[in-house]
Amino acid sequence: MYIFGVDIGGTAIKIGLFQEDLQLLDKWSIPTQTTTDIFQSISKNILFYCEQKNILKKDILGYGVGVPGIVKDGIAINCVNLKQRNVDVAKKLKKWVGLDTKIYVANDAKLAALGEYIVTKKKYDSIVFMTLGTGIGGGIIIHQQIQEGTTGLCGEIGHIQADDQRRFQCACGRTGCLETVSSASGMVQLAKYYGQAESALLSTVAPLTAKDIVDAAKQGDALAEKVLDESCMYIAKTLATLALAINPDAFIIGGGVSNSGELLLKKIQDFYLEECLEEAKGTDIILSKLRNDAGIYGAAAYIIQKEKGVNSNGKY
Amino acid sequence: MYIFGVDIGGTAIKIGLFQEDLQLLDKWSIPTQTTTDIFQSISKNILFYCEQKNILKKDILGYGVGVPGIVKDGIAINCVNLKQRNVDVAKKLKKWVGLDTKIYVANDAKLAALGEYIVTKKKYDSIVFMTLGTGIGGGIIIHQQIQEGTTGLCGEIGHIQADDQRRFQCACGRTGCLETVSSASGMVQLAKYYGQAESALLSTVAPLTAKDIVDAAKQGDALAEKVLDESCMYIAKTLATLALAINPDAFIIGGGVSNSGELLLKKIQDFYLEECLEEAKGTDIILSKLRNDAGIYGAAAYIIQKEKGVNSNGKY
Repeated sequence: MYIFGVDIGGTAIKIGLFQEDLQLLDKWSIPTQTTTDIFQSISKNILFYCEQKNILKKDILGYGVGVPGIVKDGIAINCVNLKQRNVDVAKKLKKWVGLDTKIYVANDAKLAALGEYIVTKKKYDSIVFMTLGTGIGGGIIIHQQIQEGTTGLCGEIGHIQADDQRRFQCACGRTGCLETVSSASGMVQLAKYYGQAESALLSTVAPLTAKDIVDAAKQGDALAEKVLDESCMYIAKTLATLALAINPDAFIIGGGVSNSGELLLKKIQDFYLEECLEEAKGTDIILSKLRNDAGIYGAAAYIIQKEKGVNSNGKY
Repeated sequence: MYIFGVDIGGTAIKIGLFQEDLQLLDKWSIPTQTTTDIFQSISKNILFYCEQKNILKKDILGYGVGVPGIVKDGIAINCVNLKQRNVDVAKKLKKWVGLDTKIYVANDAKLAALGEYIVTKKKYDSIVFMTLGTGIGGGIIIHQQIQEGTTGLCGEIGHIQADDQRRFQCACGRTGCLETVSSASGMVQLAKYYGQAESALLSTVAPLTAKDIVDAAKQGDALAEKVLDESCMYIAKTLATLALAINPDAFIIGGGVSNSGELLLKKIQDFYLEECLEEAKGTDIILSKLRNDAGIYGAAAYIIQKEKGVNSNGKY
């Protein structure tokens, strides 16, 4: 049987074709166009693909779909990027691909967390996944299962208060959220706050990106180092808090910013050891393995969990 | 069948006799004496009780035991109060009451959380329980189950960083923990920090207690109100963080300080609404129902979960 893993992002929709053992057979992307019926576009794209590849409906186990924003029990409660509220995503897709199709929907970062969890080959029982991109998302897996919480907020760690001074406004309407100081845009915000003009390497860069800051830090630029240190410190403080709230086996860091790799990881690990309780020092902090594919991978794994039970994990 | 629920505290050991439907039949306390073999004392006390009441061994389903400190899979890893490390509590007790006795051990606050969860009659699927006493403990129930985390730290919310200024040293060795500003001793610490002498009502009180502060706040004492507000604000901030990490159906506040009741609850609720993310505003914040009996009640419930499965909850 085949599985489709779909990851609906703000700019692109990633689609992956998987086998039941979660081997990725093919993947591709289509642009996210909020002006058209996004669910019709996805469905048409997949149906066209199946026709071309001669994949029959009876050979498809189902679709796993990741959606940005708050999702609870398959309903997308609030998707700011997609400008949609209280959407039954599965129902919208089934309209085009068939009412009897098995479609399961969850938050994109939570599915990415499941994907990352699966590739650790069950080395861990529980993980906290943090995705550092334009914003900061997260997903929490406990006893192999995605945790949504009572209103779908479980793992929305980008909105944990981190900046004591509460200097910057967050998209959520509050101030001081981790996202305002440690996401890609948060880093840029901090660099501008401390005076981008004072940096030899960054003063003329426009538009300034998190990658520019990390690159400058690697070259020893004082401002860039200050910003990167502060961003990583806030992340570490948040992980130290989560070690007391969740106490996972591991923290996994993903998202675009995590492409900065070892420098970022080392800083987070060092600050974490300073901040965390003694008994939490052994918790692993590692980088994402699946990178951009975590979402489609987790979406496919989600189908298997839903159809075959959580403990079927051994099979893939 | 009978069940014994045992709650080992720093000053007293509470013991409860329950029916399988969790009806409490009898309860009593014995002093905690760390100079003698505490496990022998507990066992002798219970055996003597059974003899007197003509309770036969075959009529006892088992013992649930709550231990202060970090417990993982029944092993008490670090019990500062009891001056014990890496203790197999069940094994120690079985030595006296019989090797074939069923004994299950967990952290005291986690069992209290389970007790509180049970009395809500499964109205909630997940709760965060916070116990405000000399220190601050906590327990997290998700999908009806106590969560211990990878090293038993799950729910140790008293050590979440709350005081941005990190003014006071915590017993854990760090500074700024919630416990240093919002526990009973934390409130006293804050009152002294702000100048106890400046308060008309509190200046001559010695030793000053959290109850004195709450009582003075009720009478409009400015210093006491300032302290209580600040303590409750830190609790609310922590709950707002936990609403993003765990997103439980409810927060339940217990422990000695919670006896201050409605005033404390109202302040925490008000600050929480200011601090939390919009989608978390509906989360219930309620006071403990079982008070001092939460520990023995939860210990008894734990036995039933272990022996009959988590979903047997419907029976009690």
